[in-house]
Amino acid sequence: MVEVEIKIQVDKEMWTIVKERVQKIGGQVIIEKEEHDIYFNSPSKDFIESDEALRIRKDVEGVRLTYKGPKIDKETKTRDEVEITINSFEKGIELLERLGFTPVRPVVKNRTIFRLEDIYISLDYIEELGYFIELEKKSEEKDVSRAITELKNIITVLNLNDYPWIRESYLELLIEKDRKKRPISR
Amino acid sequence: MVEVEIKIQVDKEMWTIVKERVQKIGGQVIIEKEEHDIYFNSPSKDFIESDEALRIRKDVEGVRLTYKGPKIDKETKTRDEVEITINSFEKGIELLERLGFTPVRPVVKNRTIFRLEDIYISLDYIEELGYFIELEKKSEEKDVSRAITELKNIITVLNLNDYPWIRESYLELLIEKDRKKRPISR
Repeated sequence: MVEVEIKIQVDKEMWTIVKERVQKIGGQVIIEKEEHDIYFNSPSKDFIESDEALRIRKDVEGVRLTYKGPKIDKETKTRDEVEITINSFEKGIELLERLGFTPVRPVVKNRTIFRLEDIYISLDYIEELGYFIELEKKSEEKDVSRAITELKNIITVLNLNDYPWIRESYLELLIEKDRKKRPISR
Repeated sequence: MVEVEIKIQVDKEMWTIVKERVQKIGGQVIIEKEEHDIYFNSPSKDFIESDEALRIRKDVEGVRLTYKGPKIDKETKTRDEVEITINSFEKGIELLERLGFTPVRPVVKNRTIFRLEDIYISLDYIEELGYFIELEKKSEEKDVSRAITELKNIITVLNLNDYPWIRESYLELLIEKDRKKRPISR
């Protein structure tokens, strides 16, 4: 399963406008929820270097353990992923730690997820980072160009063509922010 | 959670006798099931060397992912473990493989598990290995001597005092057997 994903950062005002537009073009609210994510690094390689990710997520729907492979195209955040449902957030963390994985950083998201046919549009507020819009389409095909075209069409309809796409994950953006906050050592 | 465990190998006849004795002293059948286990090795260290184990188990009760720490006493198979329930055997295997873990060997067990107060007695038939009896008590205490004494008492009652205790896991016994089957290279 390949996850084709485009992420755009906006300000609070634009975020509110887009939320209304998504509903106007037929987007149905699937869920509004708070997600608590913890990302882990591997004992055998640096996942930042290898562009992989391992995450435990807790939200109102349950707890999931997700592996994300390296990004596979140069434009979007497209990557393949393997996800399982697990029965405990705490025990999941403990098990990964016993296997040598180290927790990197928590990420807390407030998201409203809309569905428009087979495309998911997520209106996200990320603690410490701000407002984002994520468009996602799952693809069984290796060739993701069709999925990207579909997402681009929606971006045009939402009037978001002037906004750059962000390929960094929320985790990477937060790590970058943490780094900048630290005083420069002399 | 510490799992205090003693394992004894018997022949088929003795296995049948013990099964009857367990029932006579009040053991209640909890479940009779076939377990399909796959063990994995780590990309960052050799779990055989470090005496750790990572297992995915599928049986009629569901799918579980279990980490077992090194044995913590010299006599029994006592070790601590962390276990989570997961929703898919195949996806669990795929996720571990993507994280760099390598499947070592499958182990197929037919077991009848009896409960005698807080002790579990498992009458096991392991494909390619034969008949075994496992006694197990979970302990919240770090000091496991009391739990071991309790298990020893049951071993006496079951008339199994003359049988040596086996500290190797079924996986280790199977790997040893595979090794012996291989022709010696010249």
